[in-house]
Order: sequence, then structure tokens, then C-alpha cells
Amino acid sequence: TKMKLPGQEEFEASSAHENAPAGELDSGLGPGPSPDGPSDTDSREVGVPKDPLLFIQLNELLGWPQALEWRETGRWVLFEEKLEVGAGRWSIPHVPTVALPSLQKLRSLLAEGLVLLDCPAQSLLELVEQVTRAESLSPELRGQLQALLLQKPQHYIQTTGTRPCWGSTHRRKPSYDEEAPLKEQHQNPLRQRLPPGAEAGTVLAGELGFLAQPLGAFVRLRDPVVLGLLTEVPLPSRFFCLLLGPPMLAKGYHEMGRAAAVLLSDPQFQWSVRRANNLHDLLAALDTFLEEVTVLPPGRWDPTARIPPPKCLPCEHKRLLSQLREVRGLAAPHRIQAEDRHRHGPHAPSPELQRTGRKASWYPSDFLDALHPQCFSAVLYIYLATITNAITFGGLLGDATNGAQGVLESFLGTAVAGAAFCLMAGQPLTILSSTGPVLVFERLLFSFSRDYSLDYLPFRLWVGIWVATFCLVLVATEASVLVRYFTRFTEEGFCALISLIFIYDAVGKMLNLAHAYPIQRPGSPAYGCLCQYASPGGNESQWTRTRPKDGDDIDLGLINASLLPPPECARQGGHPRGPSCHTVPDIAFFSLLLFLTSFLFAMALKHVKTSRFFPSVVRKVLSDFSSVLAILLGCGLDAFLGLATPKLMVPREFKPTLPGRGWLVSPFGANPWWLSVAAALPALLLSILIFMDQQITAVVLNRVEYRLQKGAGFHLDLFCVAMLMLLTSVLGLPWYVSATIISLAHMDSLRRESRACAPGQPPRFLGIREQRLTGLVVFILTGVSIFLAPVLKFIPMPVLYGIFLYMGVAALSSIQFMKRVQLLLMPAKHQPDLLLLRHVPLSRVHLFTAIQLSCLGLLWTIKSTPAAIIFPLMLLGLVGVRKSLEWVFSPQELLWLDELMPEEERSNPEKGLETEHPFSGSDMEDSELMYQPKAPEINISVN
Amino acid sequence: TKMKLPGQEEFEASSAHENAPAGELDSGLGPGPSPDGPSDTDSREVGVPKDPLLFIQLNELLGWPQALEWRETGRWVLFEEKLEVGAGRWSIPHVPTVALPSLQKLRSLLAEGLVLLDCPAQSLLELVEQVTRAESLSPELRGQLQALLLQKPQHYIQTTGTRPCWGSTHRRKPSYDEEAPLKEQHQNPLRQRLPPGAEAGTVLAGELGFLAQPLGAFVRLRDPVVLGLLTEVPLPSRFFCLLLGPPMLAKGYHEMGRAAAVLLSDPQFQWSVRRANNLHDLLAALDTFLEEVTVLPPGRWDPTARIPPPKCLPCEHKRLLSQLREVRGLAAPHRIQAEDRHRHGPHAPSPELQRTGRKASWYPSDFLDALHPQCFSAVLYIYLATITNAITFGGLLGDATNGAQGVLESFLGTAVAGAAFCLMAGQPLTILSSTGPVLVFERLLFSFSRDYSLDYLPFRLWVGIWVATFCLVLVATEASVLVRYFTRFTEEGFCALISLIFIYDAVGKMLNLAHAYPIQRPGSPAYGCLCQYASPGGNESQWTRTRPKDGDDIDLGLINASLLPPPECARQGGHPRGPSCHTVPDIAFFSLLLFLTSFLFAMALKHVKTSRFFPSVVRKVLSDFSSVLAILLGCGLDAFLGLATPKLMVPREFKPTLPGRGWLVSPFGANPWWLSVAAALPALLLSILIFMDQQITAVVLNRVEYRLQKGAGFHLDLFCVAMLMLLTSVLGLPWYVSATIISLAHMDSLRRESRACAPGQPPRFLGIREQRLTGLVVFILTGVSIFLAPVLKFIPMPVLYGIFLYMGVAALSSIQFMKRVQLLLMPAKHQPDLLLLRHVPLSRVHLFTAIQLSCLGLLWTIKSTPAAIIFPLMLLGLVGVRKSLEWVFSPQELLWLDELMPEEERSNPEKGLETEHPFSGSDMEDSELMYQPKAPEINISVN
Repeated sequence: TKMKLPGQEEFEASSAHENAPAGELDSGLGPGPSPDGPSDTDSREVGVPKDPLLFIQLNELLGWPQALEWRETGRWVLFEEKLEVGAGRWSIPHVPTVALPSLQKLRSLLAEGLVLLDCPAQSLLELVEQVTRAESLSPELRGQLQALLLQKPQHYIQTTGTRPCWGSTHRRKPSYDEEAPLKEQHQNPLRQRLPPGAEAGTVLAGELGFLAQPLGAFVRLRDPVVLGLLTEVPLPSRFFCLLLGPPMLAKGYHEMGRAAAVLLSDPQFQWSVRRANNLHDLLAALDTFLEEVTVLPPGRWDPTARIPPPKCLPCEHKRLLSQLREVRGLAAPHRIQAEDRHRHGPHAPSPELQRTGRKASWYPSDFLDALHPQCFSAVLYIYLATITNAITFGGLLGDATNGAQGVLESFLGTAVAGAAFCLMAGQPLTILSSTGPVLVFERLLFSFSRDYSLDYLPFRLWVGIWVATFCLVLVATEASVLVRYFTRFTEEGFCALISLIFIYDAVGKMLNLAHAYPIQRPGSPAYGCLCQYASPGGNESQWTRTRPKDGDDIDLGLINASLLPPPECARQGGHPRGPSCHTVPDIAFFSLLLFLTSFLFAMALKHVKTSRFFPSVVRKVLSDFSSVLAILLGCGLDAFLGLATPKLMVPREFKPTLPGRGWLVSPFGANPWWLSVAAALPALLLSILIFMDQQITAVVLNRVEYRLQKGAGFHLDLFCVAMLMLLTSVLGLPWYVSATIISLAHMDSLRRESRACAPGQPPRFLGIREQRLTGLVVFILTGVSIFLAPVLKFIPMPVLYGIFLYMGVAALSSIQFMKRVQLLLMPAKHQPDLLLLRHVPLSRVHLFTAIQLSCLGLLWTIKSTPAAIIFPLMLLGLVGVRKSLEWVFSPQELLWLDELMPEEERSNPEKGLETEHPFSGSDMEDSELMYQPKAPEINISVN
Repeated sequence: TKMKLPGQEEFEASSAHENAPAGELDSGLGPGPSPDGPSDTDSREVGVPKDPLLFIQLNELLGWPQALEWRETGRWVLFEEKLEVGAGRWSIPHVPTVALPSLQKLRSLLAEGLVLLDCPAQSLLELVEQVTRAESLSPELRGQLQALLLQKPQHYIQTTGTRPCWGSTHRRKPSYDEEAPLKEQHQNPLRQRLPPGAEAGTVLAGELGFLAQPLGAFVRLRDPVVLGLLTEVPLPSRFFCLLLGPPMLAKGYHEMGRAAAVLLSDPQFQWSVRRANNLHDLLAALDTFLEEVTVLPPGRWDPTARIPPPKCLPCEHKRLLSQLREVRGLAAPHRIQAEDRHRHGPHAPSPELQRTGRKASWYPSDFLDALHPQCFSAVLYIYLATITNAITFGGLLGDATNGAQGVLESFLGTAVAGAAFCLMAGQPLTILSSTGPVLVFERLLFSFSRDYSLDYLPFRLWVGIWVATFCLVLVATEASVLVRYFTRFTEEGFCALISLIFIYDAVGKMLNLAHAYPIQRPGSPAYGCLCQYASPGGNESQWTRTRPKDGDDIDLGLINASLLPPPECARQGGHPRGPSCHTVPDIAFFSLLLFLTSFLFAMALKHVKTSRFFPSVVRKVLSDFSSVLAILLGCGLDAFLGLATPKLMVPREFKPTLPGRGWLVSPFGANPWWLSVAAALPALLLSILIFMDQQITAVVLNRVEYRLQKGAGFHLDLFCVAMLMLLTSVLGLPWYVSATIISLAHMDSLRRESRACAPGQPPRFLGIREQRLTGLVVFILTGVSIFLAPVLKFIPMPVLYGIFLYMGVAALSSIQFMKRVQLLLMPAKHQPDLLLLRHVPLSRVHLFTAIQLSCLGLLWTIKSTPAAIIFPLMLLGLVGVRKSLEWVFSPQELLWLDELMPEEERSNPEKGLETEHPFSGSDMEDSELMYQPKAPEINISVN
């Protein structure tokens, strides 16, 4: 009687509705045990029956013949942990490996031994009595064996904070009152990591001299029950396996015990053995396991090496498929793979792109859901990130627009726009911020208006009015679906250009400082300074005569002079003379040092996250606040030395940075009336930019991986952005769109994760606390921070340039394009084993990269000409370039190098995927990696 | 009839003589194939019969039914390479994994199929006829099959430099003239990587619709013969395996073919199958293989994941042991492990420590062996390293001793001492150099003599004379055996102290520069400078009156002045006045920039070696010449900006740096006569230092891993060092001892490695070109470079400080002690899986580290007191501390944390190793890593 295949129902169910979230099938645990028990309230998971998680421990009988005792030497949940006897610690979780003969010996021992399924024992004593009733045992032997099995085992329990407590080492006679678990068992930190409802399985193995023949027993308890001190964690036991026998060579029982434990830890075996009716079913499950094992050849693999847990476990889904295929003769694995890829594709626009405007029903919960302590830390983190952003972008914009924008405007605008967006938007997790593309555009717009002597702010107001109009048109025509045409090619071109501009600007501004504060070379004429007074006998005319332009004349003749420093000199009625009176030494190099320090420090802190040092909380704080800490370090260094480095420009009171303007921008100013119409042209360009920036961010944030419950609001969000555009233009504040990185950080800080996770397994993602309150509080705090503005004037500009450089470098290094550029420099032999490289010939990969590079070069060239302001149009041109690439590359290649565009998706993929190569059959071996949901790779906003 | 176990003879032979070099047993290939064929002239390997290396390829039959063709889809030497069909490249070599059912199906197919052992076929045609003579085949089928088997297979051959050539795709009728291998086959780069004598094995597998039942055949050819176009490399074929059958589900024949190839690539299976007499032997070998395989559970391991080649392969030795243990019932694996550890221990003094002075017989070959192109690059590399060292140490010593030593002395001394040592020494690969400890001591000696107003060089001469005397006594008493008491604890304490002094000094000197070139803060009084002339009506007295000490008076009154720069002013008869005339701005920060740049650049270049970028030759050059390149970069930056940074002090002509002394140091100078006796005290301290430095380096260089053939000369070398000490003291040149790092680099650049190595396998180390010529040429070139000295005055001192810091940091980070210090900062969960941590409780590891840290703190305290000069004695005190640690730690713990001292070695180890823990049995699972020869971990000389 063929058993029903495990998880078959689930597979059929999940393939029925195609749009099921991807994480579902990739959870790595599949239909078997899931480490998040009843606490998981995800509605979509209700209805799928789940077996409880199984914790397995191996108790070995050691010390034969003098000092017999049971000692726990290994444990398994997902992976194996071995007790390092010498070091007294649990090993790092690793993939369990066993020798094939052990499995075979185990099989024959079970086949001959005692198998009790649904044993009704209610305590360890009853269980031991049941197990030792084998006929071959003499009564005396049975008594000895029972006493031995009731003996208390030694567990190594590392309780947090205190020294490890080995269970008390003195052996006692078993008594009934000892069946209650000990305090150490309850304090075991592993207890907290296992979900409620978890069950235990115990394997007892060892050599026992007085046994004449091996004794094997396998018990499945009908009702799981806590077996006193047997397991290190007081979990109800479900399985019990006994493997004893006369001494054997080469630690046979140890290995057999490990084999039994590994077998029990296999989800599919668990599934089968929970449903087994007799010995035959049990052995059939073992044989199924054996049929699926992977074998490592002895000469090429050291069997004692420990394999770290893989990034992704084989999903049950696939394992099931291969069984189904054999059973039903399914012949098209490719079709299933293709479906999987489509479902999990990096940018497959989510179904939310079509429907909007049903957010009202969620509104009350948007505030109630924020009542969780996690939201406090999220607010702190995002608040600091937001003001860092406001300071950096505000400082740079003030620098670039001669004060038309500034830090104060940046704070005010961020607070007003951000808070308004949080209250109105469809996706309230989005954080509005100044972003790179808009910053670059505004800089260009300012130089344009300066070149043509326009009154900047009124001109800017009209641009804003037009942009808002265009955006409303885009909302009305539901143009957001066009975002599907922005493939990774376009996004990465966009991101790379903005990042390069950041890097170029940061370095350029640093070099400008060296011009403003020239370096004094030996023998350079800029030497000498004195304080000259009107000579006692001289008159005003003589003063004038000996006061030519500085530097023109070096020979002064007879003068009345002192060596007072220039400010002191002026106070005493003298006049500072000499070229070096106006130069400040040391500033150039000190600024360079500050610039490099803040850049390198921010980079280093960013990498602390993946280092081995410090507890993970500390690492997370250091890494998350890398920019803030780098700015603080720079300010500290600057304050310590007290040099007159250029500082951030902040008005002394609450008024616009530009002197002489009010908070409302006049609609025309000194500009001719027709400029309000002509502003439509730059506005068109800016609209493209805003649309791309806003919508790509929105797509990234609404990816299925994040499991958002309350839906998105693509059109509503764009509408809000348009309205805020209008408001900020009228007030002369910076323009804002959704910022990818900071919004992702916001979502990340609101992740709900399963607390219980098996050793070696990363916590499981449950969802995001979707609410409006954290964002709102962040922006209210930002508004309050305006009064902190006077503190900001201590921030040296070179530090901000360093952070700016860091932003550019970090954004640039995060895109796949740069990985492919790096491939150009790597010999084929040393290239990493990317899936991409397994499927696309290297020359084609390089060709694609070269095309991308030349597009970037073209964009850069345009950006360097007077026509720079049209660069948004050129970015749009990337879509066309990408479209024409379809003539150069096959759909299969584009699928790996980029992703498919809508037409291709509709027409080609099946064909493309099936005809990749006449012998594509061998690609069935693709790694599990292909099935994993991809992390967001794009951070187009550079912030 | 039980076959003799493979490699049994070798094992018995090697255990007979205990002192056999360690590498022998760890070569990873064991008794089976060895990739270095007859070219390997290592005498110790003669006598062990070696099977030729086997190259295995899998040709798959694809395209059924329309376009049948054979295509090579995988190949194996040590590891598996899979053809990435889509990308058209060979995969990265990886550990082969197979599914267990494939192996079982293969077994049954072979059991039923045709097995031809010692088949006399001389060509592919004959072979095909032999294989297809199975009775079950109809004549028609046989004809079809023969035609198919003779069909030319498609190979993917990537010839270097040119585009890959797929074998021509048009199929032709087989004819005899096609049996000759094609040009592509000969051009195959894989050909060069396989040693002469290698043989091929081919597996042909696939689905063939017209077969009614599976057809399996296994052929061992009596005489290996090149089978025309069958294999991608024209090697003589030894094995041929055919696996054909009617279509199956799930790529059965592909997996079966892979299983056959993996099986054939196993060294032990190869050994057996080469000696098999019948089908029974073949199946027995397969069963032995199955008994040893490691099994990965299906639910925890994705079978398609590729495992990169392990750092060390399981050695045949151990695999054999486990078999022997089962066969003979050997019960003491620990004893063998312990022996292994002793043989391979990091510092087990080599047997050469006892015998010296039989070097004369090698003398002629010491010059003849240098006639190899490799020696040219070694000379260039070591020459550059030597002069970099001479510049850095000379520059710093000149700085520290006010010119008593200098760059010129450093060059001259290095050339004279080095060349003399190369001509006379026992171990001519040693490079003599200034080392950290001697530099630190000389600095202390100089400050001591300055404090007591002694005439330094004569005093130093007497110290040198006494040191030479003491060293001769040490030589005469054969005290070199004492070096056994310097365990890693002592060496690391030594190294850490010197490294810290380097770091402290480098940073300290940098800060001193900031004092010498003060930073001008805003409003600081050091402002203003003018050029004052005698006033026209004034006289000399007035000049004097208005010329108080600079800075005392700021009000100058009526003066005749100009703003000329100070040098110009002086030339025109004026007098520069004002505090800022003597300060040079910008120098402090620019020096700091140079310092950091050269430090960071050298560090970064050092890490290029392990990056993925650039071909390995480029990486090696960049990494090897990191210091030189960093110095060049620093000089370039300095020259580009042209600032008056402090530069290296170099005399303009060939004379001692100290003005007014000749090349010979007068024996007494201004010192009292009794100082020549009192000098014995510091000389005693220096002797300790020289002895430790010299002998630890000698031990490291003569480790068994380096397979030196010509023996060492511990006593002879110390004698030479003593004589050169005398010479350099008389001439007033720096003192020299053997430098660990640079000597290791010398040996490394003279490595002989097997050219042939299988994909995924690192080249095999064969030995070192031991000769005197490279060293001699290096020092002759150094001597010639004295005339380049004038160029050196362009090197800024901050750059040298940066390199100095780099040396200290690099040396510090290379010692195990620092790894343990890092463990203090890591949460237990994130600690790396060190063997140490598997065997010693974390608290004990931390205790040991804490003791080491406090010893270091004590040493540092002493170094900071006026008694600093006695620090060598304290270093010796570390030996005592280490000895007393035996009361705190068990021998087992010390073995892992440090190593055993002679007494312990003699008395305890057996006990210590066997009684580690009552249940130490489980430690049998230790990774192979334990058996690997360790890389030198100590670089005590900090250079």
C-alpha cells in the first residue's frame, strides 16, 4: 500500500493559485515541521496541516565497563550540533553527514529489533518496561538493563550568563520523584529557541559488554510525554530509539546512533514515520531516505569535515516534484522552473500595481498596529537617518545653490512633506526625502538660471507647478504601469550615473577647498605678513602711497610696523600687509584628512555588520548609524584641533537661508511673464525623473518578499508627491520623492520575525508592522529639530563631502552592473561561481557590460555639456537601448543578465526557456539559489 | 582471496623510520596516482610504486532520436568539472557528489554486463568490436551500435588565447585515418597540466531508443593506447566504460555515467581495479567504495550544490589506517595521531639541530644549482626587499642615533655582512638583515650612552666585542639546543613586544613631526613675518636694539622692511623677523597624509594577493613589492606637491653619516678604560637577544616542511654572526642577524613546484633550490647600490614611518596570540571553528590569553622605565613563566595552546594525549587539518 506522498496536498494547493507569495514555497521546511508554531497567525498558512518540530538528542553510553553513564553527545533540530568534549561547548551547527554502512547497520538492527508504534507509555518507567520486554533477554539482564536505562543522563546545558552546569555527576538510584524535569532543563536557552508544540526524539546508543547480541528498539509514543530527565529540554517525547550491543570496532554504536538521529531529523522521514503503521512502513521510509541521499566519494572528501549550513535548504517543493516526476512521469521540469522564476523574478511587478485606493479601511489599524516596543527603536533609527540625510543634502544643496536652499529649508521641508505624506499616502512606510537625482537636477537648474540671469526661486516655483500638473496627468492616465519597462538595465544605468555624479562632486568640492585655502610651498611668494601703522611723521597721503594692492609691492621701505595678527592689528588701527595675511595655512590638508576620515570611517562601520566581533546588537547599531557616527567623529576631530575649517552655513534665526526673502516665494520676481510658460520644458524633464525615482522605489518596496498585507497605492502616492511638490515650490523648500534606501531601512526596522529558530537557521520573516505612526513621529521629531539648527554650524563641510562620497560609493557597489564590471578584471579561473556565468557565455556577459558602460559614458558626456539638464530624457533613452538589445541577445540571456520586458514576457519566455540550447537538459541541476526570493538589489535614490 | 591493501607497503615502510618528512604522508594523493611523474627526482620517493594519474571523461549520447551525437559533458582528475552548456565553459572544479541509487544501478548494470580485464585491443575499432560482441545483440543492432560508437565526439576545448574550438560539428563516416588525434586535442591546455605518463579513462553513457535492454561494459586495456578522437586530451586510454540503454526517467544514464566516472576517479578504487582479476574483484572494489562513502541527508543538503575543493584531501594514510584497524583490530589510533602531531608539530626542532658542519661537500653544487631562470626573479625580489629594509632601518636608526648609524652605513653593512654570510654560512638561504629587536636595543643603548655622556661608537665597539665572545662561548658549548625551550609562548611574546614598539615608535615619531612643524591655529601668536634691513640712518647699535629674541617683542616701531621670503631676505642683507618666519605651514598635516597613505597602501597591496582580480602573476608582484610600491607612491606624492617635508638624511659623498669620523672606530675615544669591561653587561643582554633572534629564525627556516636537502648549520651560522658582529662594530656599521621574513621570502621565491597539477589542486611542493648564489648576488647588488644613495634623499621620513607602522601591524596580526585576543571580543556563537576551540574550554583559552597579555603589559612597563635596556632578560623570563604554566594547564591544553617543552615531551605526552578526557574517543573525528604541515606562524624579526 503506497503511502500518500508527504505534502502532496500542499503542493497541489499552492500550484492552484499562481500568485501565492514566493516565501511560502521556499521556507526551507516545507510541509513538514515549521519552526514557527501556533504563534504564526499568517492567514495564508492556515489550513495546511503541520507536524510539530522535532528536537532529537543522542545519549551515548560511555565508560564501559567501570563507570557506565549516559551522556548527551549530539543534538539535531535542523542541523547537527556535536558536544566538543574537550572544550565543553556545543559545536557550530553543521550539515550532518553519516557513513553509509552505519545507515545500513541501523536498518538491519531495526528490521530485527523491536518496533512499537503508538506505544501507550506515560512515563519513562513504563517506556523502559515496554522496551525491555524482548524475549531474548533473561530476567536478570532485563533488570540490569532497566536500571541502566533509568539512570540519569549527563547533559551539557549552557545557561545564559552563568557558568555551564553539567547535570549533577553523582549517580543515584532512579526514583519516581525524579521524573520531574530539573531547573537546568527549564533554564536551557535552547528551550526558548524551539517553538511551542515542539516534540522530542531521543536516541540511546552505546556498547554494553554484558549483552550477547545487539538490541534495537524503535518506539513512537501515542501521546507525547515529558520523560523526566531523559532530554536536555523538557519537551514531550514522541520518538525513542535504543541501539545497544556488545563492543564493536570503530565506534559502531556511536555512528549508528548518529545515523538514527540524522534519519529522524529528516523532514520527509519524520512525515512518513509519524504515519507509519508497521515495521514495513518504517523500513520503506528508511529506504526512501537512502534513495535520496547524496554521496561524497571517500578519496575526495574528509568525512570528518564539517559543512556549514547552506544558505538555502532544498525546498520540499522541489524534492516532492522529483518524486512526483518519477511517479507520474512528469516530463517538463522546465515549465515548472520557468513558472517559479516568474513568480520569484526580481522585479515582477506585484499585482498591487493595478489596484489602488482601498486604503481607507486600514486607516484605524495604521495607528493601532504601532503599539509595539519595536516601533520605538525604529523611530530612533529612522529619525537619525532622516536628519543625517537632511543635514547632508541640505548642506550640499545650500552649497550648490548659493543658499537658495539650505539646512534650515531641508529640515523644514522634510518635516512638512514627510509628515503630510505619512498621513495621506497609500504606502505609509515610505519615507520622503531629498534624493540624488533631484539634487543633481536642482543643481543643474540653478546653474542654468544663473547663466541666463534668472530669478531662481520664482522660476523654480513655476517648474514645480508644471511638474505637479504633469504628475497629475500621469496619475489620471494610470501611467504607473509603464514602470514595467524600467528593467534592471535602466535602473542600474540610472543608479550608476547618479552615484558617479556623487563621487565626482564630492572629490571636486574637496579639490575646490584646496583652491580656496592654497597650500604654501617653500619659496612661494605668498609669504610674509606684518601690521603697518601710519608712520608717526607721515600723513594720509603717505599711507596711501605705501599701500598698493597687496602682493604688487614687496619692498615697503621705512614703515612703522608690528607683528600683530591681522584681526588684532585692525583693532589697533593698523593695516595688515603681506600676501600671507589672507591665507589660512593647514586648512587644505586638514580638510582632506577630515574628508578621508569620515569616508573611511563610515565605510568601515558599514562593514562591522558582517564581522565576527561584538554581539549582533552592537554590530547592528554601529553599522546602522555609520553616517551619524562618522559625522560625529569628524566634528570631534575638528573641534579638538580648533582650526578654521569651512563649516556648514546655518542662519542664526528661523528664517530662510537666502538673505532677504520671506517664506513665500513670489510668483514672478524679476523674471519675465513668459518664463512661467517656458518652465514647462525643464518641468517635463524633472517629471520624468520624479516619476522614475518615485515609481521604482514604490515597486521595490511593494515586492512580494515583504509580504505586505495592506496593499500599496502607486497612484495615490504619486498624487501626494505632486501635491507636496506644489507646496514645497511655493515655500521655496527642497523637492521630495520616496527614497529607496531609507524606506527599506524603515521596513527592515519593523520586521516581524519568528523568535523561535533552530540552531543554524536564520530567523524566519513573518511580515512588516505596517502603520503610519512611526513615520509620522519621525517627521514630527525632525520638525522639532529645527531648533537644534544652531548646533549644526559646527559641522565642517569636508565631513559632509566625505559622507557624500560614501553614499556614492556604497550605492555604486551595490548594483549587479558593478559586479559584472569587476568580472572584466578577473581571470576566468578566479571568477566567482555566479549562476549568471553558468548560463551565459562570458563573452556575452562582457558584451552586455560593455554596452552598459558605453551608455553610461554617453550619459556622462551629456552631463558634462551645457545640455546637461536634458539628462532625464537620456535616462528614458536607456529603455529604448534595452529594447533594441533584444536583437542582440536571446531572451534566455536577457533573463539572466537583466529581466524580461512585458512583450517578451508575454510572447517569448516559454520558447526562450525551452530552446535555450539543444542540450539544456543538464541545466536541471541548477542550484536551489535560483528559487530563492532575491534581496532588493537596486537603490536608485542614492541616499 | 583478499587483495593486499593498497599502499600497505608504503605505510609499513614509512612507519619504520620515524623521521620521514611529514609532507610525504600528506601529499593528498597517497600511494595511488601522483601528479608529479618521473620528473620528480626526490630520492626519498624512489622505491614506492606509483600508478599513473588517471584522467576521466564522460561522453554523453545526446539528441535522441533525430540528431544523435556524443558530447563530453564532464571530466575528472581529482575533482569534477562540468561543462556549462549554456555558458560554454568548464565549471569551477568541485568535489563530485552522486546520488546513491545511481551507484547501485551502476553496480547491477556492471554485474550483468560485459567486463573485459586486460583487453588486448590496439585501436578504437578493435575496442568497439570487442565491446559489442555481446550475445544479446542482433547483427543489425551491433552494426548500428558500432557505427555510433565510432562517431566522433564533441569536445569543448578552450585553447589558450584563442576562441574555444568546438570539435567540428559535421559528422563523418569513421575511417582509419581519423584515428590520429586532432590538433585541438594536442593544443588542449589541460594536456600541460597532466604529468607525463598519465592515462585516460572514458565513460560513454546515454539513452538509446533502439536498445531493448540496458547494455553495460567495463574494459581495462592491457596496453594503454591513444583511442583517436575519443578523449579530449590525446592520452593513452586504460579504462573504457559503456552504459547504454532504453530511455529512462530522470536522466538515469547521465547520473550513472557520472557515478562511474566518480568511482574511477577514486584513488583506492583505481588501485583495486588496476589489479582486479575478474568481475568479482571489480564488484568488491565498488563495495569497498560504498562502504567508505559519506552520506548527506536529502532534507539538509541540496544535491546540486557544488562543494569547493577542500583545503586538504583525506590522506590515504588515514584511510588505510581505518581499514587496517578493522582488519587487524588496531586499537590505538591515538598513538598514531600523537606520533603524527609530533612529527608535524609547529616547532619540533628538526634533527639538524644536533649535527652541523658537513656542509663542505655541498659547496660546489651551491653555485651550480643556481643556474635556473627562477633564480633571476628571486634575486630581483630579494634585492628590492633588502634595500627597502636597508633604507627603512637605516633611516630610522640614523634618526634614533643622531647619525651614529645611517642609510649609508646600512647599505654598506648589509652588503658586507650579507655577502660574507652567504659565502660562509651553513644555511646560505638565510638573509642577514637589521631586525626589530636589535634596532630597539641599539636605540636604548644610544640613549643610555647619551644619558651618561659616553662616546657612543667606542662604547658600542666594546659591546660588539663582548657579544662576539659570548656568542663564541655559546657555539663552543653547543647551546643551540636550548632553543627547544623557546616555545610559541615565548616567541609570540617576543614578537608582540617588538611589534608594539614598532607601532608605538612610528606613531610617536609622527606626532613629533607635528611638534617640529606646529599647526597654526586661528589667532595663534605664531603669525607674521617680515624682512628687516638696517634703517638707512641707523647704525649697528640700533640694529641690535631692535633685534631682540624673536617673539619676545611684537611691536617693532619704525623699521626699514620688505616682505621677501626669509632665504631671499638673508641674501639681500636683511634679517627675517617674526614668529612665522621659522614655521613651515602645511607640513604637519601633509606628513600625516603621507604617513597614512603609505601605511594604508602597503596594507592594501599586501591583501591583493588573496583577491580575485588580475592574473596571479600580477597579484604576486603587487603583493610582494607592497613596501617598495608604497614608498614610491609616497615619494611621488611628495615630489608632486613639492613641500619641504623632512627627508631622509644621506651624506653627499661616500663617508660615514656622523660628521668627522673615519670608517674605523677608535677603541676608546673619550671613554674611560674601564668602560671596555663594563660593556660586558649590556653585551650580555644583547647576546640573549641575538641568540634568540638568530636561532628561532634558524629553526623556522629548517623546518621539515621545506624539505631542505643540504642540512642546516645552527652552530656555524651563529659563529658567522659573531664574527660579523665584530667586523661591523669595528667599522661602526649596524649589527645583523638572520631575518625570518625576508629569509622565508627568499626560500619561497626558490620553491620548486610540480608544473603538472589537476584542476582544483594546488601545485605540489617539491623542494627549494638550495644554493649560495642568489643571496650573494643580492648583496653584491646592494653594495653597488651605495652609489644610488643620493637618490635616497628624496624619500620623506613620514613615508618611512608609515612603512614602519605597516611592518609592526603586519607582524602583530600574523601571530596566533592576536587571534586569541580577538576571541575575547567575539561572542562564542560567532567564533571561528578553530581546532583549538574544539579541544580547550573557552575559559581556559581566555585565561591563557590573559596571562600572555599581562606578561606583555609587564614587558611594556619595563620598557618604559629607565631600566628598559634589560628587556632581553625579561624576554628570557618568559621561558620561566611558560614553565610555571605547567602547574596551571594540563599538557593536553598546552599542546593545543602552545606546544610542549622538552621535559613534558619526554614524560607526559603519551599520558597527556591518552587521558585528555575520559571520553576522548570522540576526538577521533578530528579534521584532517590536524595532520597538515603548519605554515610558519612566527616572524619574530619584524622586518
